[in-house]
Amino acid sequence: MLNGEKKIEAPLRWAMVGGGRTGQVGYKHRSGALRDNTAFVLLAGAFDVDFERGKEFGKNLGLDVSRCYPDYKTMFAEEAKRKDGIEVVTIATPNGTHYEIVKAALNAGLHVICEKPLFFETVQGEEIKKLAEEKGKIVGVTYGYAGHPLVFQMRAMVKNGDLGDIRMIEMQYTHGFNSADDVDKTSDAQKWRVNPKTAGPSFVLGDLSTHTYYLSHLICPHIKIKQILCDRQSFIKSRSPLEDNAYCLIRYDNGAVGRFWASSVNAGSMSSQRLRIVGSKASIEFTDTQPNELIYEVQGQPIQKLIRGMPYLYDECNASERLGALHTEGLIESWSNIYLKFAVAIDAKNHKDTKTLETLVYPDIDAGIDGIRWVENCVKSADAGSVWVDFI
Amino acid sequence: MLNGEKKIEAPLRWAMVGGGRTGQVGYKHRSGALRDNTAFVLLAGAFDVDFERGKEFGKNLGLDVSRCYPDYKTMFAEEAKRKDGIEVVTIATPNGTHYEIVKAALNAGLHVICEKPLFFETVQGEEIKKLAEEKGKIVGVTYGYAGHPLVFQMRAMVKNGDLGDIRMIEMQYTHGFNSADDVDKTSDAQKWRVNPKTAGPSFVLGDLSTHTYYLSHLICPHIKIKQILCDRQSFIKSRSPLEDNAYCLIRYDNGAVGRFWASSVNAGSMSSQRLRIVGSKASIEFTDTQPNELIYEVQGQPIQKLIRGMPYLYDECNASERLGALHTEGLIESWSNIYLKFAVAIDAKNHKDTKTLETLVYPDIDAGIDGIRWVENCVKSADAGSVWVDFI
Amino acid sequence: MLNGEKKIEAPLRWAMVGGGRTGQVGYKHRSGALRDNTAFVLLAGAFDVDFERGKEFGKNLGLDVSRCYPDYKTMFAEEAKRKDGIEVVTIATPNGTHYEIVKAALNAGLHVICEKPLFFETVQGEEIKKLAEEKGKIVGVTYGYAGHPLVFQMRAMVKNGDLGDIRMIEMQYTHGFNSADDVDKTSDAQKWRVNPKTAGPSFVLGDLSTHTYYLSHLICPHIKIKQILCDRQSFIKSRSPLEDNAYCLIRYDNGAVGRFWASSVNAGSMSSQRLRIVGSKASIEFTDTQPNELIYEVQGQPIQKLIRGMPYLYDECNASERLGALHTEGLIESWSNIYLKFAVAIDAKNHKDTKTLETLVYPDIDAGIDGIRWVENCVKSADAGSVWVDFI
Amino acid sequence: MLNGEKKIEAPLRWAMVGGGRTGQVGYKHRSGALRDNTAFVLLAGAFDVDFERGKEFGKNLGLDVSRCYPDYKTMFAEEAKRKDGIEVVTIATPNGTHYEIVKAALNAGLHVICEKPLFFETVQGEEIKKLAEEKGKIVGVTYGYAGHPLVFQMRAMVKNGDLGDIRMIEMQYTHGFNSADDVDKTSDAQKWRVNPKTAGPSFVLGDLSTHTYYLSHLICPHIKIKQILCDRQSFIKSRSPLEDNAYCLIRYDNGAVGRFWASSVNAGSMSSQRLRIVGSKASIEFTDTQPNELIYEVQGQPIQKLIRGMPYLYDECNASERLGALHTEGLIESWSNIYLKFAVAIDAKNHKDTKTLETLVYPDIDAGIDGIRWVENCVKSADAGSVWVDFI
Repeated sequence: MLNGEKKIEAPLRWAMVGGGRTGQVGYKHRSGALRDNTAFVLLAGAFDVDFERGKEFGKNLGLDVSRCYPDYKTMFAEEAKRKDGIEVVTIATPNGTHYEIVKAALNAGLHVICEKPLFFETVQGEEIKKLAEEKGKIVGVTYGYAGHPLVFQMRAMVKNGDLGDIRMIEMQYTHGFNSADDVDKTSDAQKWRVNPKTAGPSFVLGDLSTHTYYLSHLICPHIKIKQILCDRQSFIKSRSPLEDNAYCLIRYDNGAVGRFWASSVNAGSMSSQRLRIVGSKASIEFTDTQPNELIYEVQGQPIQKLIRGMPYLYDECNASERLGALHTEGLIESWSNIYLKFAVAIDAKNHKDTKTLETLVYPDIDAGIDGIRWVENCVKSADAGSVWVDFI
Repeated sequence: MLNGEKKIEAPLRWAMVGGGRTGQVGYKHRSGALRDNTAFVLLAGAFDVDFERGKEFGKNLGLDVSRCYPDYKTMFAEEAKRKDGIEVVTIATPNGTHYEIVKAALNAGLHVICEKPLFFETVQGEEIKKLAEEKGKIVGVTYGYAGHPLVFQMRAMVKNGDLGDIRMIEMQYTHGFNSADDVDKTSDAQKWRVNPKTAGPSFVLGDLSTHTYYLSHLICPHIKIKQILCDRQSFIKSRSPLEDNAYCLIRYDNGAVGRFWASSVNAGSMSSQRLRIVGSKASIEFTDTQPNELIYEVQGQPIQKLIRGMPYLYDECNASERLGALHTEGLIESWSNIYLKFAVAIDAKNHKDTKTLETLVYPDIDAGIDGIRWVENCVKSADAGSVWVDFI
Repeated sequence: MLNGEKKIEAPLRWAMVGGGRTGQVGYKHRSGALRDNTAFVLLAGAFDVDFERGKEFGKNLGLDVSRCYPDYKTMFAEEAKRKDGIEVVTIATPNGTHYEIVKAALNAGLHVICEKPLFFETVQGEEIKKLAEEKGKIVGVTYGYAGHPLVFQMRAMVKNGDLGDIRMIEMQYTHGFNSADDVDKTSDAQKWRVNPKTAGPSFVLGDLSTHTYYLSHLICPHIKIKQILCDRQSFIKSRSPLEDNAYCLIRYDNGAVGRFWASSVNAGSMSSQRLRIVGSKASIEFTDTQPNELIYEVQGQPIQKLIRGMPYLYDECNASERLGALHTEGLIESWSNIYLKFAVAIDAKNHKDTKTLETLVYPDIDAGIDGIRWVENCVKSADAGSVWVDFI
Repeated sequence: MLNGEKKIEAPLRWAMVGGGRTGQVGYKHRSGALRDNTAFVLLAGAFDVDFERGKEFGKNLGLDVSRCYPDYKTMFAEEAKRKDGIEVVTIATPNGTHYEIVKAALNAGLHVICEKPLFFETVQGEEIKKLAEEKGKIVGVTYGYAGHPLVFQMRAMVKNGDLGDIRMIEMQYTHGFNSADDVDKTSDAQKWRVNPKTAGPSFVLGDLSTHTYYLSHLICPHIKIKQILCDRQSFIKSRSPLEDNAYCLIRYDNGAVGRFWASSVNAGSMSSQRLRIVGSKASIEFTDTQPNELIYEVQGQPIQKLIRGMPYLYDECNASERLGALHTEGLIESWSNIYLKFAVAIDAKNHKDTKTLETLVYPDIDAGIDGIRWVENCVKSADAGSVWVDFI
């Protein structure tokens, strides 16, 4: 079990762009990255568009104020001058800024961890992938649910044939917090999400569905989407053309089919990310509000509930166990696991340890690009009248 | 509360076609119809294609053996000769026989109660509707979940605006009992369901989805389907062209959207009929495995669980309350409520009590036709390549 | 599977004392007894202390008005004169009247089915048991939850050693409907329950706990209570000395221990009867609000949920299966199973079929006496200052 | 919302005694204390009885090896010599060593955080309390569930009268991991727990029940236990006289009653800490496996589920909100909240800020003593034959 002992020689010198006091997203990054103080150490930041506020914030986090910067460009430039300058930066800014900041970070010789959705276009993703390869750097994407141990149980069960042939993948990521339009007017964190300039070509598809889509890919890496159909709506008219609700139908290359429901107008619903994989013999179902349980239904047998931390789980699952079966894990344990893998990947990259890089399963640049591709194809289908499109 | 006291002057003289010993479907009809012995009395039957077996079965139910018949034609003819002959007949035979038997029953002067899906084609439905009107008879359809009291709570909540404007209707009726192909070979009850001659143009769409579709219509009668798209699969190849899994997307005339998932290959899943209605203010969710509870989620408020039988429910719900909130109801209470309404409708029809007929909400011939229409449109879309079709 | 076909040659001629329009208890008896019309036929009744109301009620149930009687004495006398007179009577009157009516019924040559708690004192029970034996009659007691199929699954699992040695029995039957005192003033059904003259020496112990106590005995017949301790309270003072809440601790002869919580002031709680049997290897847990599921927890293995109607259940369970695993059963299926067993027992008694009587497991006079004994011992302990008493 | 910004001027210099590699308990302390790096900084440790192993462990946590010590005495002595020596120490060793180490720590001028149960006897507690007061130091006790935000919602609801008068407190902390005796032989973490020398006068009472007992006290501080009765068992004989299962009945000074079930032989059960508070108007129920939800049942109204992070919760609850309602918290968020309060208390103590100390609600020395008292009284009752004893 993980207990905080170091997995890399020394913690990586880390900074953030964005993630300041006005939202809680940065706190998830810091809680994940700094969980054990053996993977990352936070040394610098350009946390806020309001420099004074950002500086005070950094100070309150215990940073040296001289390493709180007004913007990412200054930070990259100044840190590059230091012997003990940062090695890796997390980007937790509105979607529309990811591309330029990631590019700048790589050009500044930094490893990068970026919020999802990575960029607006797959071509941007391919360009950045090429740049990262040239620079010998890692780009990680924070699909924050992808570190839950039971997600890796699901992956191992599929791989080991416990479900038989995969027939259906049911995906859902919905909530109801945007059922009325008032939040669009009052919340800074919401305003940019419904503006195409800052949010890109989608709202809930990018903001929500990319999470579950990545999980499905992680769990069933052996099947590929062949065709997709997406119908999207803007129930709050002012959000148009960005959708607050979307339905997708999916056809996979092995004959399996799937569905997605992404919504921020599922009134009254708290977060309800659900993933059900149906095979010819059995199904598994996971929901992020109870990440300590996995439902396993074998046709003709009693319904099973698998509990996180138990010895009967596959090694791939228990490899990231932290607290033991008696104790409840939450979202931050997932983030901690992801950030630990980012650290291991960065360390391996630094040491040209290709073996580790080949076997380590984490949300990398390809996962980021695949998420962009998913949104692109959804939008293409929706904008063509919600018709079937080849997934390219 | 209902307590078995009569709602009509005398119980209706009742017979069954089908519903014999080889399946359990007939038992649901009898359990519903005979719940209180004040709505129906079972006097005759053509229960089985094997006459001897059917006769012994009828005798074991306490019938006069002379009123156990080899087939429906003989029954209708012989009963017509009796002063105390049957007044109403239930048809619980494979789908492909419904049309001719219903027609014969009406022509024999009987009221009719028929299993769903009613027929294969809406034109048959329209013809039968006309015939029933001419004959002054009722045709009821056994959408067996439509009698649960909380379904009428949902209807009242929608009507009273508790949800705001309807935005989404999520429907699911799935199980996993046909995940393998063996049951197609061994079960008589399954064999005819996967044969287009006896089952019609669909398997799970007709067999399962018509139930939940009717519930959605019952709960949201004010909105109509405008367009539909259906993708269906035969995961067990031998079932082709009949589907064992189907996905539908729906567009309603008020701008709402919806989804349906019908499946008998949702491996490991027990019956899982779910219905979620999402409005602009709140959502409600019902599942038939716990018909004593209704989830009511108002955006921004604690999640509520409404319990069957409680005084805070609407009158439309408690009108069919039988046991009180402390006591758990099951499927048969729903069937009992439906059959009681059939009796009241038949009695009203006999007495030309149009006021009762206009206000009584039960699955009538129009509900039956609408179910056929649903399947027809689904199949049309699916067969055209899973494209959007106007719902006609 | 049960499907309504007769288990005895002809339905038993049946009457009720009590169970009229002012409460719903009689409806449960009728719904259970008349489920299939092959076990009982309702022919007479003294339903109500108000004769006119009772007569109208009987008429509304379809009875011959001449067989609606003003009181049980008249009914027993008049029916005895008829060739087609009643054979068996159900007593659903306040507790304080059970003893005299059961005695009168037996003396009138009738089999008897009686509500729980049977009487106030075990000596009454022993007397009636002797009388019933002399008269060659059955006395059944309506522990209405004792017919759920999964209760027999639990019994079979314990018998087959699936749990290992029994270590703990956790019992609960609580609700919150008497949290305030208003119901004591307004409800006829409640008034007599909190009056020692009509209710006997206890309120919730007799009214609620006898149910779950019987289930525990049914499931673990091989262990006996050695000592008991009971602490009871009257949170609504006017109910004193009758308790509206009681806690019991139990010591069994095999070293196992147990607990009981009975309450009608568990505010906000709907019916919540729970039973958990803990063994050295595994535990099982059942709740009457979801009688279609049984939780089975084997130490070190995934938690299992067993579903009613599935082939993997023991024969003892599926022997009383009616609807199949896809369909939800409720409380009335349990009552139907109990009443069917009453009919089979009565028929066996009539035919001196001792083999059937020896193997049939149903709530008989001994179960009734055991329930009285339970209450007596609880009260004895509570009244002695909530001390341990030997269970005698 | 908490976001990691500092609550005290500088993080406290912190060390651990125990909590090394052989168990996971230390990891919970570190995960809680170091969550934001603004409350504590880990600088030294005597982690392990095996010095080499402990040293390597400390190194792997990023500590200066020179500050990894062979035992607590050395650590206290050496750190006292340093200008930057530790200010506060956490003690996570077997129960039997707590007293001497806490005493030594206070005498070394350190604030102390100690695992529960604090000591074996209340007199030890009183002595240490006096010593702490003399030294001007804080002693905190890690009741690790006492930081869940919804626990403070419960406290506020009780205080505000949402439940009416408190009538019942139902407590449970059970699991099944010790159902067989093999773990006593193989696990170091278990061996000392069933040995009276190291574990004290109880096993599960001290190990488990002190947690939930503290929660009940936190939520209902206005009522006091008057009498208690405890029956305890050693189902695995070799554990005797220490119990692996215990039942308690409780009488409070306001007329309320309560129960406790503590067990490590509740076979098949994962951790299942449950707390239900029943009032005259409503009940609340919490379980630690889903700390993001609180069930709130008002008599006569729909059942409510309150969700962590929502604005409708009381300020006392949301004061320790970290992630927002969409995101699932686990046990470590609770530990983080407790450790943050320890830091604030220590800082206030250092600055003689009595106002903060008077209002801050956290598990302090009095809570620790009260837990010892609870166990003492339970054991006293059990050893006297499970009789009622006055709670002193």
